[in-house]
Amino acid sequence: MTRRSTVPLLVAGAAVFLATPLWAAAGAEATHNISSFLLTLAGILLAAKLCGEIAERVGQPAVLGELLAGVLLGSSALGVIPATGATAEIITILAELGVLVLLFEIGLETDLREMRKVGGSAIAVALVGVVLPFLAGYLYWINVPHGMGEGSTLGTAAVFIGAALTATSVGITARVLSDLGNLSSMEGRIIIGAAVLDDVLGLVILTVVSGIAAGGTMSPYSVARILAVAIGFLAVAIAVGGWAAPRVFRSIANMKVSFAVPIIALALAFALAAVADMAGSALIMGAFAAGVILARTEQFHAIEERVRPVGALLTPIFFVSVGSSLDINLLNPMRPGGGTLLLIALGLTLLAIFTKIAAGYAAPWKKFRRLAVGVGMVPRGEVGLIFADVGRRSGLLTDDVFSVVLLMVMGTTFVAPPLLKLLFRGATVDGNPEHLL
Amino acid sequence: MTRRSTVPLLVAGAAVFLATPLWAAAGAEATHNISSFLLTLAGILLAAKLCGEIAERVGQPAVLGELLAGVLLGSSALGVIPATGATAEIITILAELGVLVLLFEIGLETDLREMRKVGGSAIAVALVGVVLPFLAGYLYWINVPHGMGEGSTLGTAAVFIGAALTATSVGITARVLSDLGNLSSMEGRIIIGAAVLDDVLGLVILTVVSGIAAGGTMSPYSVARILAVAIGFLAVAIAVGGWAAPRVFRSIANMKVSFAVPIIALALAFALAAVADMAGSALIMGAFAAGVILARTEQFHAIEERVRPVGALLTPIFFVSVGSSLDINLLNPMRPGGGTLLLIALGLTLLAIFTKIAAGYAAPWKKFRRLAVGVGMVPRGEVGLIFADVGRRSGLLTDDVFSVVLLMVMGTTFVAPPLLKLLFRGATVDGNPEHLL
Repeated sequence: MTRRSTVPLLVAGAAVFLATPLWAAAGAEATHNISSFLLTLAGILLAAKLCGEIAERVGQPAVLGELLAGVLLGSSALGVIPATGATAEIITILAELGVLVLLFEIGLETDLREMRKVGGSAIAVALVGVVLPFLAGYLYWINVPHGMGEGSTLGTAAVFIGAALTATSVGITARVLSDLGNLSSMEGRIIIGAAVLDDVLGLVILTVVSGIAAGGTMSPYSVARILAVAIGFLAVAIAVGGWAAPRVFRSIANMKVSFAVPIIALALAFALAAVADMAGSALIMGAFAAGVILARTEQFHAIEERVRPVGALLTPIFFVSVGSSLDINLLNPMRPGGGTLLLIALGLTLLAIFTKIAAGYAAPWKKFRRLAVGVGMVPRGEVGLIFADVGRRSGLLTDDVFSVVLLMVMGTTFVAPPLLKLLFRGATVDGNPEHLL
Repeated sequence: MTRRSTVPLLVAGAAVFLATPLWAAAGAEATHNISSFLLTLAGILLAAKLCGEIAERVGQPAVLGELLAGVLLGSSALGVIPATGATAEIITILAELGVLVLLFEIGLETDLREMRKVGGSAIAVALVGVVLPFLAGYLYWINVPHGMGEGSTLGTAAVFIGAALTATSVGITARVLSDLGNLSSMEGRIIIGAAVLDDVLGLVILTVVSGIAAGGTMSPYSVARILAVAIGFLAVAIAVGGWAAPRVFRSIANMKVSFAVPIIALALAFALAAVADMAGSALIMGAFAAGVILARTEQFHAIEERVRPVGALLTPIFFVSVGSSLDINLLNPMRPGGGTLLLIALGLTLLAIFTKIAAGYAAPWKKFRRLAVGVGMVPRGEVGLIFADVGRRSGLLTDDVFSVVLLMVMGTTFVAPPLLKLLFRGATVDGNPEHLL
């Protein structure tokens, strides 16, 4: 890497950001136009790569750059990514495909036997990592003076705040671990296992809280049923698919038509995601299950190699899209009430961070880098965004409370990648930690 | 390929088609639901590969199977691909991305110097292939008794019918030639060159005809301006890009972040497509120009290798989508007026085929397989669909006339791949034809 090669790159980057008003103008003129969508898409991809590069050059994971690219391109900053309209909807769908392909790839790299070895620890980390943040969030909202809601409204909002603190974004952490080559380390496996369980639990909590928000009550029976369906889907899909997939994919490998194996593999990931959703579990659970299933086939390497370029195109769209949902005006302490709101959000973010770090110490019988696991559970990412969105749309969260949740989600999402990078720096690529904390 | 491996494949195929009513039902229940979209997407990918496989096993190009998969999944048959709604819109966008990536890949394989050698022949084939079908279509519609429109309506409709016969679908032919390994043969280069020019001319005609349809008149000056912009865009983009791209991509190749080269290459393709559209040219011209530009960079091979899996995912969506627009009820001669309509469409289709075949003989000074080039110009594909759609939406074509145009488009699209396969069978993979016609 010479200085000479850096200059044109920076010039190109500067040119892109100077040109963005043109794109925004083109987008504003024709919101339903395919040209406007294509320019936005091109801008997202270019910004993701340039910001990812800057992040890597200052020693940070590329995903942090992609998140920041999203903030820059978002509607509150440069406005390349519109907040609403046809282009916004298509970008959201592509982002969703991106996170599905990412979870599929993570599933592909998941060795179930290795996973079982850390299963107990992962369950402990997941459970403590759900209960602790929930209680902390609830008590914080009830007790901190903030003037947002009172009486029964306050109580329901507090339940929601607690719930929003529970689920980890498996996508962010997995991407960082993958960037660092630590996905298959013991810590990596515990984090992925716990984060997947966390998502299942978070989904159950979301369903329950949404039910309460809609004015209903939840019997312990219906809560148990939701939980059983969510976990049952994963178990059944992996059991049935694990038996059938090696047989079916042996036939597919004999097909003459090009790219049959990776494309049918992706079709399976999309189909299982849909089935998971319809069965009451999460989309990403289905994509993850498809990956785990195909990890056992003989075609595993061919699938991984051919799906990677597809993931390289789609997953940055997801991270940029997550970043673009941050309204940077919220970070301005000078706007009316802005200072108080930032302080309340800061408190909630610190609680969100430290309760998940505490969860890293939940399995004392096993030796692993507890701090690294705890930090790996910190980012709330898109799962937190989904919680915040459901809360706002159900009328349960006012705009101010929604902003607080959004700031907490962003804070945890942005703080985790550099911390993980720091904590995993000592570990070798193949995942043998040099020193256990 | 053993008989043993075929059986589970066919069983899987049968299971898919038996399961489609379930998917259609799921789609009907929740049209705005991401699960429904994901199931449709999975169905498209699986059907494309299975039908592509069947096509290859009976000695046909895979793209014919993908088109037929579209007919099967379309709203008039199994109904997996809805005709309208959120899922339909997203599939259309993904299909558009698919044809852009395809044209980008074709551009990547286009050697400008080799192209120049066949330039005169390509121009002759393109010009005759536009004038002849236009006149034939116009005269056919004016003179054949069909009872659809009369007086001035008949004349305007006849102009439209003629126009719809002009443009070749470069996508279909290029994909067939690529499947057969004949993209770089002399015939392949003439076909691609002529089809690209054809698209430019077709676009100019479409703009003019749309202007007439909107009640305006077109001065020769404005027609010339549209033509100059369309051709000028291609020339300027290739000249400027051809100078800048090798320099910029040398810097990009030095980037540390993964997949920077192919992803920024795709961003360029999408951005140039948008610029082409905004400059009054066609989207696919921009993507094609991006490919031609990058064909001259040192990173050409890395781009091609990494973009191919992305194309393998997206381009079948395009072909399936084209196939799905065929309403199979139109093929029923027993419905009222169905027989007459089919006969009129058959006449128009034969004219469409033979006028393009005649265009293959337009460059007598050069030796090449003329019949192969002519047949390569036959498929009207998505370009014909765009014409038909514009005609219907402007109120210029009644539903019956629209159906006739649609049947002509489908007829030419389905007849070309097997004929091309037949004609290019004697040619070697690297494109030296064994016998010249």
